[in-house]
Amino acid sequence: MVLNHNLTKETQRKKAERFLELHHGERILVLPNAWDVASAKVFERAGFNAIATTSAGIANANGYPDGERMSRAEMLEAIRRIAQMTALPVTADMEEGFGAAPQQVAETARLTLEMGAVGINLEDGTRDEAHPLTEIPLQAEKIKAARQAADAYDIPLVINARVDVYEKAGGDHKDFLAEAIRRGNVYREAGADCIFMISVDNRETIAQLAREIAAPLNVLARRGSPTIAELQQLGVARVTFGSIPMRAAMTLTKRIAEEIAQHGTYGFAEDILTYGEANAYFEK
Amino acid sequence: MVLNHNLTKETQRKKAERFLELHHGERILVLPNAWDVASAKVFERAGFNAIATTSAGIANANGYPDGERMSRAEMLEAIRRIAQMTALPVTADMEEGFGAAPQQVAETARLTLEMGAVGINLEDGTRDEAHPLTEIPLQAEKIKAARQAADAYDIPLVINARVDVYEKAGGDHKDFLAEAIRRGNVYREAGADCIFMISVDNRETIAQLAREIAAPLNVLARRGSPTIAELQQLGVARVTFGSIPMRAAMTLTKRIAEEIAQHGTYGFAEDILTYGEANAYFEK
Repeated sequence: MVLNHNLTKETQRKKAERFLELHHGERILVLPNAWDVASAKVFERAGFNAIATTSAGIANANGYPDGERMSRAEMLEAIRRIAQMTALPVTADMEEGFGAAPQQVAETARLTLEMGAVGINLEDGTRDEAHPLTEIPLQAEKIKAARQAADAYDIPLVINARVDVYEKAGGDHKDFLAEAIRRGNVYREAGADCIFMISVDNRETIAQLAREIAAPLNVLARRGSPTIAELQQLGVARVTFGSIPMRAAMTLTKRIAEEIAQHGTYGFAEDILTYGEANAYFEK
Repeated sequence: MVLNHNLTKETQRKKAERFLELHHGERILVLPNAWDVASAKVFERAGFNAIATTSAGIANANGYPDGERMSRAEMLEAIRRIAQMTALPVTADMEEGFGAAPQQVAETARLTLEMGAVGINLEDGTRDEAHPLTEIPLQAEKIKAARQAADAYDIPLVINARVDVYEKAGGDHKDFLAEAIRRGNVYREAGADCIFMISVDNRETIAQLAREIAAPLNVLARRGSPTIAELQQLGVARVTFGSIPMRAAMTLTKRIAEEIAQHGTYGFAEDILTYGEANAYFEK
């Protein structure tokens, strides 16, 4: 594994501190999700303060379905590239942490820091249909282990603990609210800096989660979600987009393929970055 | 360097033979250019018969400007991923061949075959403003060296020799026609299977190039180029798109960033592949 040698420990620490502060500012932290260096550089130049990665986007770009089917080593290599090529704080989506045992998650957290990232996502949803959510005590142990690894590494890694209650339930029905809040607060106690809820669009539910979880709340924005301004009003601290931007790019590629195959024309070449403009993103 | 172990020599030989045949069929060979595995899989599923890579697209996706600024090892790794994850013949854009000497180009050709590709692009344009085109005898030696390397490897590598006369002249003025034809025919004699012209859109010029170069002609299609149907009528054997599809995707990413930053809305999430549909491209 190639380490990220472009970053001193002191620079990385400052990035991590700055990134954590952004979760406690007056304005919602808007964090677009990159899947390769090009998307990261586009987001950087657009003026965002930090960048997240998308596990699904990175997996797909490299030829794998999402869900830890891409090896940890390959995922880390993709994260290293992004962290090394951008000046912004980068937070890495490491799914379930690549291991059932807390010690494995600790190792994943340490390696994520070695790649130059300053944040990590860890989710409690599993790929086991019989047990779709990790038991709360085990998930808390995983988060604790990641925090201990970061402490040993001496960088305040921003741990974003994802709660998949609504995702697994298939909707944001209020019956799941108590469980979502409970998980959020346990994970916060275990060492998470931010609690991440996906598959929840209901304004009242989001407001309640923001009020009753004693940590900054991250919500995944998608079609049908409240706007970013609304999310801020509801008390959300951080908004991310998962693999949606990557899937939009993949969908465009599909449309390009169809135009070429069915019409033999080049409408897709209109109003795009020139060769020189694209390359300029990557000049040192 | 990781080799491509998913491909037997016999399978690779058949792919190379099939790919060469496609240059001599009744229909023009339409070859979209991939920059990662996701784009390659989208093109594969759309029904194309083979896939090209784009050096600029791969470089940009990995954080580099085009022009051999990404190392040969990294470029080869990106090509291996694409060749390993798709069943189609893959031809690799290897720019100037990563070396001034024919022996270096030979090594690049051998490594390209080791990655699982069955075709290679080699261009005569340089990054030296004082000498924008490689002298014809040296370029012919480079192509010969690549052919010898392929013979030694025992795979009929499809060599696509790019002629940058029009690109460097900044237009397709007819004064350059003789030079373009001369280079094409010399490269063909040196062992190229196909001659690749970029920056030429004039129908009469394209038809003359197709008639007077004794090899299949590849043209780069862009905004303003004749349609694919017209290119076929003009005698063109192969059409590629360079980094245009990648730049279209990068431009879309830029627009997504702008929508998020300026409006806080998610119009980009409409009518796109779902998470499940995207992942399904990569299931074995």
